[in-house]
Amino acid sequence: MYRTHTCGELRAEHIGQEVTLSGWIQKSRELGAMTFVDMRDRYGITQLVFDVSKNPELSEPARELGREFVIKVTGMVIERESKNKKIPTGEIEILVSELTILNKSEIPPFTIENDTDGGDELRMKYRYLDLRRNPLQRALELRHKMGIEVRNFLHNQGFFEIETPYLIKSTPEGARDFVVPSRMNENQFYALPQSPQTFKQLLMVAGYDRYFQIVKCFRDEDLRADRQPEFTQIDCEMAFVERDDILSMFENLAKHLFKTVKGVEIEGEFPKIPYDQAMKLYGNDKPDTRFEMTFTELSKIVKGKGFVVFDNAEYIGAICAEGCASYTRKQLDALTNFVKRPQVGATGLIYLKCNEDGSLKSSVDKFFDEEQLKIWAETTNAKPGDLVLVLAGDKKKTLPALSELRLEMGKQLGLMDKNKFSPLWVVDFPLLEWDEDLKRFHAMHHPFTSPIVEDMELFDTDPGKIKANAYDLVINGVEIGGGSIRIHDRELQQKMFKALGFTDEEAEEQFGFLMNAFKFGAPPHGGVAFGFDRWASLFAGLDSIRDVIAFPKNNSGRDVMIDSPSRIAGDQLEELKLKLIPKEEK
Amino acid sequence: MYRTHTCGELRAEHIGQEVTLSGWIQKSRELGAMTFVDMRDRYGITQLVFDVSKNPELSEPARELGREFVIKVTGMVIERESKNKKIPTGEIEILVSELTILNKSEIPPFTIENDTDGGDELRMKYRYLDLRRNPLQRALELRHKMGIEVRNFLHNQGFFEIETPYLIKSTPEGARDFVVPSRMNENQFYALPQSPQTFKQLLMVAGYDRYFQIVKCFRDEDLRADRQPEFTQIDCEMAFVERDDILSMFENLAKHLFKTVKGVEIEGEFPKIPYDQAMKLYGNDKPDTRFEMTFTELSKIVKGKGFVVFDNAEYIGAICAEGCASYTRKQLDALTNFVKRPQVGATGLIYLKCNEDGSLKSSVDKFFDEEQLKIWAETTNAKPGDLVLVLAGDKKKTLPALSELRLEMGKQLGLMDKNKFSPLWVVDFPLLEWDEDLKRFHAMHHPFTSPIVEDMELFDTDPGKIKANAYDLVINGVEIGGGSIRIHDRELQQKMFKALGFTDEEAEEQFGFLMNAFKFGAPPHGGVAFGFDRWASLFAGLDSIRDVIAFPKNNSGRDVMIDSPSRIAGDQLEELKLKLIPKEEK
Repeated sequence: MYRTHTCGELRAEHIGQEVTLSGWIQKSRELGAMTFVDMRDRYGITQLVFDVSKNPELSEPARELGREFVIKVTGMVIERESKNKKIPTGEIEILVSELTILNKSEIPPFTIENDTDGGDELRMKYRYLDLRRNPLQRALELRHKMGIEVRNFLHNQGFFEIETPYLIKSTPEGARDFVVPSRMNENQFYALPQSPQTFKQLLMVAGYDRYFQIVKCFRDEDLRADRQPEFTQIDCEMAFVERDDILSMFENLAKHLFKTVKGVEIEGEFPKIPYDQAMKLYGNDKPDTRFEMTFTELSKIVKGKGFVVFDNAEYIGAICAEGCASYTRKQLDALTNFVKRPQVGATGLIYLKCNEDGSLKSSVDKFFDEEQLKIWAETTNAKPGDLVLVLAGDKKKTLPALSELRLEMGKQLGLMDKNKFSPLWVVDFPLLEWDEDLKRFHAMHHPFTSPIVEDMELFDTDPGKIKANAYDLVINGVEIGGGSIRIHDRELQQKMFKALGFTDEEAEEQFGFLMNAFKFGAPPHGGVAFGFDRWASLFAGLDSIRDVIAFPKNNSGRDVMIDSPSRIAGDQLEELKLKLIPKEEK
Repeated sequence: MYRTHTCGELRAEHIGQEVTLSGWIQKSRELGAMTFVDMRDRYGITQLVFDVSKNPELSEPARELGREFVIKVTGMVIERESKNKKIPTGEIEILVSELTILNKSEIPPFTIENDTDGGDELRMKYRYLDLRRNPLQRALELRHKMGIEVRNFLHNQGFFEIETPYLIKSTPEGARDFVVPSRMNENQFYALPQSPQTFKQLLMVAGYDRYFQIVKCFRDEDLRADRQPEFTQIDCEMAFVERDDILSMFENLAKHLFKTVKGVEIEGEFPKIPYDQAMKLYGNDKPDTRFEMTFTELSKIVKGKGFVVFDNAEYIGAICAEGCASYTRKQLDALTNFVKRPQVGATGLIYLKCNEDGSLKSSVDKFFDEEQLKIWAETTNAKPGDLVLVLAGDKKKTLPALSELRLEMGKQLGLMDKNKFSPLWVVDFPLLEWDEDLKRFHAMHHPFTSPIVEDMELFDTDPGKIKANAYDLVINGVEIGGGSIRIHDRELQQKMFKALGFTDEEAEEQFGFLMNAFKFGAPPHGGVAFGFDRWASLFAGLDSIRDVIAFPKNNSGRDVMIDSPSRIAGDQLEELKLKLIPKEEK
């Protein structure tokens, strides 16, 4: 037997018991005739004492114990002289009478502490050591707990978790697929799913009524900071529902998770903000609503005063940063530099200081007199002490730039508390987006999203104006999930494919099975999919999804620990009827 | 709103309420001025009544409703005149006042009833219709329930569910991998996991202590009847455990599932049968122990009597089929034909009838007198009325042949009740198996399985004799899962790779990351993996795993519904730096 208790379990009430523990050596220090060792496992840390006066035969081996050795000890639980109030086991220690070294350890390449000295690359290579650190163990525990709570909530609501296949069919629509050559079907390929979308719809056609699945999805895209080639979705679908049935169900799921995982009670309904309004007020379809600082459009009041930047601008928008009138020249220059960064893309920043003494000071005093600036202040609700920041330019570029500026000000003003949560639904998205390069529409959500009923007739007149019956769940500026009411009518689905530029043959080849299914009594249905990695990292208070994933890949899609992907054997390729195009032939 | 209740919910207590229901038309019949319709959803069936005298405007549309139409109705719950005791809603019906056709249906290609007239291929093509049938819905519901119970049980035992990657590294050891070409890492491939084996071991090295995952695994093998290229495992691992800690934990999991999913209480510990004994008594390492009929070896008592078949046989074994002395010539011939089938492979069948009157009659009377036959009967514990069946030949072929015969007799005698469950652990498997073709050992379980401590020294003298610290859970002759205590010592792992014929370089290239991890304090650990599909199909009382899988593939690895795998576009191949070898070039 390796242990009677874990390293996080013993308390004052156990004093006098003989126990056996196993774990890793966190650290060890000698104090005269005594050696003190912190032994660690997933559950906590327990202090061991080797006392040369009581167990002389153990004193030498104890002194040889190195960091990360795995040991088993037996001994008496005794009261600690100097209690450690920081850890739950701090009242006791183990006076060791037996010691077994279960495995030795080389000196690890970085320290295994809450804060480590290891660089990113080293920690990825020795991920199994990085994963020993407490913050990562707590993050994976939280993720596990979320999974359990999601499942039990949905189970209690009558959902079935049903597994959909991983080896499916490649479709050119959307992001790039990972493909899998089939040996048994020569020259043919499976694709790994980007989502179980069509399968969950077929399950609705099949009458399963309420489906969910926590499931891996795959996208072969060039990786950005917070993307992984494989990621996990909480995928859900319901039949015989309207939009608000779905929002209410998953709002309750979100509240359940807030409560059981974070201990946070969210009161009242989540706000529902139409896409147009989100863009107007926040310049962003996933607004961070932990703080206000909404946009005010100034175009009407500032144009025609001779300031050419404004006069030529399609859009002029402002935010009011409370209490920032005292910003120095240096701070304002830094903000100007911030908005001019290529990632933000503004050409310049205009400000108006509403000083505490009531005076107004602007970077465009030349063009606007105090009377006019007063109107700026009134329109933006700026009070004495506030700073109004203005961007101008093309609407398409200026809205997101002003959004970035707003978030930067939120950060600077400490308005983005990680322990405050502000969820909302963004609704009424456009159905179609015009692709200027390809000169055709593509689906903003996906081709199976239903238009809202009132807009149906626009298909023939002005498809770009159609609103989708689609919605996103946004928390603290992070898009946690999204979904829609789906098309369940064959003719409407055909119309949609046509609007997206599919020929009948392409539609048939790629989605014929779904169109066929719609012939046999498809019920009205809709659903939602949540990004599990992202939701977990939000709850864990982490900036990246990487640390809620046990074995993530780096930005080149590599697992540097196992050194994958890698070359495969020639006979493996031959069996698959594949030849490589050598790198030189590019 | 589509419904106030489901089709399985209404009872006598609801009489007098106005309700709205949605669902599919199961069937419809006219009776004078009335139309009766059975409406179905996942939850049940409710009878609708359209009464021309009360709602004349509905009578025509009601008559046009076809099978599998999706409708929504509103009406009054009324008491049924002729109650149907077979269904829970049989006391009531709905007098319909409003009818909406939500979607029409073509006539389905097969009937959607418990027993259908559709052939296998048709049902696979229209899987979404087959999945509407009640037996499949109940099978997927049972599978869902098992998943929930597994997770909650293991969660309560302190296990974390941790997701391991799907895009990993190809290793030549074991079955064939499915591979995934990497676009970002030219000419390199990921592999889909055959199991998360090495990752779960790394999680133990990382200190996660108790891990599980319900996870898809992939094997590119030629498919036999009950195999799928993708299948689901309940994958588990624990640190600081010995074999019996694991068996006890997962025996409790199994009992929990029996109780919560099947309502069956399994009393006492599961028997543990060593591999050698299972082979000796049942000729099979996954014996069906719902019935006895164990083997008796007759070699010692039947050799040297001049019967050349016995005299030349390495092994002569018998089973005693109770009460079968009355088998006719025809029945015995059928059994002989059964054992001679190539799948069974015996050369002939010898029998001894122990007649009710005490007389003995054997197919080899010529060689054995009554005195000798009496000894056969005594040795096999045959009583008057019993039939002794004997096979002889090479041990390697005869044991499995006799096992097949035993199972056939079990079937004929009705001893394989699907509602009786007989679980056991098979333990002490051989560590290595000699591969006569390759003239080398391969791992019977996998290369990470620990030998039992007592056999360690045999590595240098007689590796074929080493027993593994491995175990299988067998229920009713089905191998539900298996596992082992793993090697956690770097030197022992090296020894094992060497015994399996790996060069140091091969071991390093394929499993270097694991060998490295063992340098940094790997704890003792072990685990188990269960075949979820198989366990679910056993609990569902099904013969194949296909019907506990929503969208299975056929024996060529094809999904005939979505028509996958399929050709992919030329530019997709080019991006992946791949060329196809055309079929002709074979």
